[in-house]
Amino acid sequence: MTNIPNLNIVPFVSVDHMMKLVLSVGLDTFLRELADVIEEDFLRWEKFDKTPRIASHSEEGVIELMPTSDGALYGFKYVNGHPKNTKNGRQTVTAFGVLSDVGNGYPMLLSEMTILTALRTAATSAVAAKYLAREESRSMAIIGNGAQSEFQARAFKAILGVNQLRLYDIDSSASLKCQKNLEGQGFSITICKSAEEAVEGADIITTVTADKQCATILTDNMVGPGVHINAVGGDCPGKTELHRDILLRSDIFVEYPPQTRIEGEIQQLPQDHAVTELWQVMAGLVYGRNNERQITLFDSVGFAIEDFSALRYVRSKLAATGLYEELDLLADPDEPRDLYGMLLRCEAAMAGAPSLPMEKIL
Amino acid sequence: MTNIPNLNIVPFVSVDHMMKLVLSVGLDTFLRELADVIEEDFLRWEKFDKTPRIASHSEEGVIELMPTSDGALYGFKYVNGHPKNTKNGRQTVTAFGVLSDVGNGYPMLLSEMTILTALRTAATSAVAAKYLAREESRSMAIIGNGAQSEFQARAFKAILGVNQLRLYDIDSSASLKCQKNLEGQGFSITICKSAEEAVEGADIITTVTADKQCATILTDNMVGPGVHINAVGGDCPGKTELHRDILLRSDIFVEYPPQTRIEGEIQQLPQDHAVTELWQVMAGLVYGRNNERQITLFDSVGFAIEDFSALRYVRSKLAATGLYEELDLLADPDEPRDLYGMLLRCEAAMAGAPSLPMEKIL
Repeated sequence: MTNIPNLNIVPFVSVDHMMKLVLSVGLDTFLRELADVIEEDFLRWEKFDKTPRIASHSEEGVIELMPTSDGALYGFKYVNGHPKNTKNGRQTVTAFGVLSDVGNGYPMLLSEMTILTALRTAATSAVAAKYLAREESRSMAIIGNGAQSEFQARAFKAILGVNQLRLYDIDSSASLKCQKNLEGQGFSITICKSAEEAVEGADIITTVTADKQCATILTDNMVGPGVHINAVGGDCPGKTELHRDILLRSDIFVEYPPQTRIEGEIQQLPQDHAVTELWQVMAGLVYGRNNERQITLFDSVGFAIEDFSALRYVRSKLAATGLYEELDLLADPDEPRDLYGMLLRCEAAMAGAPSLPMEKIL
Repeated sequence: MTNIPNLNIVPFVSVDHMMKLVLSVGLDTFLRELADVIEEDFLRWEKFDKTPRIASHSEEGVIELMPTSDGALYGFKYVNGHPKNTKNGRQTVTAFGVLSDVGNGYPMLLSEMTILTALRTAATSAVAAKYLAREESRSMAIIGNGAQSEFQARAFKAILGVNQLRLYDIDSSASLKCQKNLEGQGFSITICKSAEEAVEGADIITTVTADKQCATILTDNMVGPGVHINAVGGDCPGKTELHRDILLRSDIFVEYPPQTRIEGEIQQLPQDHAVTELWQVMAGLVYGRNNERQITLFDSVGFAIEDFSALRYVRSKLAATGLYEELDLLADPDEPRDLYGMLLRCEAAMAGAPSLPMEKIL
């Protein structure tokens, strides 16, 4: 871990700095390196404190806290999900996160995570597909062409070499936006008129729609043998994208079962339906894909450890790039037991005199 | 709630701004107004989502998240507790917090809360004593003269008129620091050689020590009739300050029973030992103090709603004082579904050209 002096000052990565960081590292490199850190942390999965995220639901959406710790570092993310936000020009999902030192409890990084979450979600999907999709997979259907779609495309290209995209969205302007954004980046792109058309011949199917209702984006007859399904959009209670019959035909891989059973596609199945933990596949403890006709499904909901990995990766880039500000977030009295004295000294400094009573300066 | 434009920009109150805010409002006024907001929120206690804080324990200490919501606003605090921190010049407790709009999930305030927690803890203690201590209480013993002690003294003076202090700490330099810091602020102060001496004749006994072990700061014979005990220091599993016999002789008042049973003095008692919720006393639903000989005990551990009140109060002061910075914490694409396009535009701006491939600029 890079050593940044003045531990009471917390490095802060703003949205602007995050964009510059991604661009200075290069998006492909950033996604590949981030994927490596995520793999590293998945391989030591058992070392982490794990808990389903703590959600505060309202009629309009949800606000969640996602903490985890590996015993040396502690991380958490704040993230909201408000499907109606786009109507008022706001993001459906925004996020920020903090990484701290378990030994003294001091935050070591505060970072925007709206962009970073998009990147870690895409990197995690691609890492899962590396273990689960057929090796020669080059074409991917992306159903739902909103804010996450281009990141998925870029991660699958950077990490797996996927370069043929078949896009579909109920709003065709979203597909056009996605196509335009990915222009000149080495993809062959087909915009499709239906989800059925999009999945034709695709090696991988990514579903990443945003509705907060049980929807059926994919029906059973649309999924052929050998396909890997990367189900990203269903991520809270009542929000699913796949028909239940697909789940019954698939081998299902998840991040953290207690959370996925609440939030993922498998909320449609009995609590004891067999699923495989992705980290166990990575660690070589269990098989991922056995054969060319098997349907594999990564039921992704996003887990705290991925955010921890992302914060850890971002922090490792700070010293070299300098792309952060210093935030005066933690009180730093000269004598730790003298927090009140710090106020008195601030008062004296403001008054330009050493001993005025506090109430009288302003 | 004050309207601050640019909802993607989050107002940030640094340590420096918090000190200036407290000093510009005036510490007494700040404590009184904060106490009023805390009372306001305790009076609508049933409207809040409540949960015991989410703790991540390690050998060195604890990191906690404390979320709550009243349905319109959501707040959470990050707080650590690391007793050994002072050895390395760090605070035992540091904190920061966020207030958000439940309707869209966007943060509306990020604030330091190390100083603010000290203020809200003291204000809450004083509010509790207003309902529980004898009316003519003017003298208070403070056992434990660390970072919280002066704030307790100032809050009890501002809100209840307590002006006689009897200080004791196992480290006499802490008592001297406390005395010096409170000089010229209208207190009559006695430094005592023992806890026994400190409690002699005190109307109120405040215990606010910092050890993370079961300690016995007060024994049964030290507590006379009519006293109000403000037990602040015991606030996590295994950390208590009072002998069990005192608890058995007292009427015990708590913030949120499920959390206090884990963290408070009452962790020494059976889970079904009767306690009274403070908000019910405030609301006039149950009695606080019945008679002049009753021993009342506020078993304070600090609850999320107090932090929520504190964040709400701080935010109400921002527009008038301007004591905040603007933090670029939330991504704000022109089109909410076009997060990736925001990256592309940043790239173009950095390159001074509109269409370079992302990897090639730097």
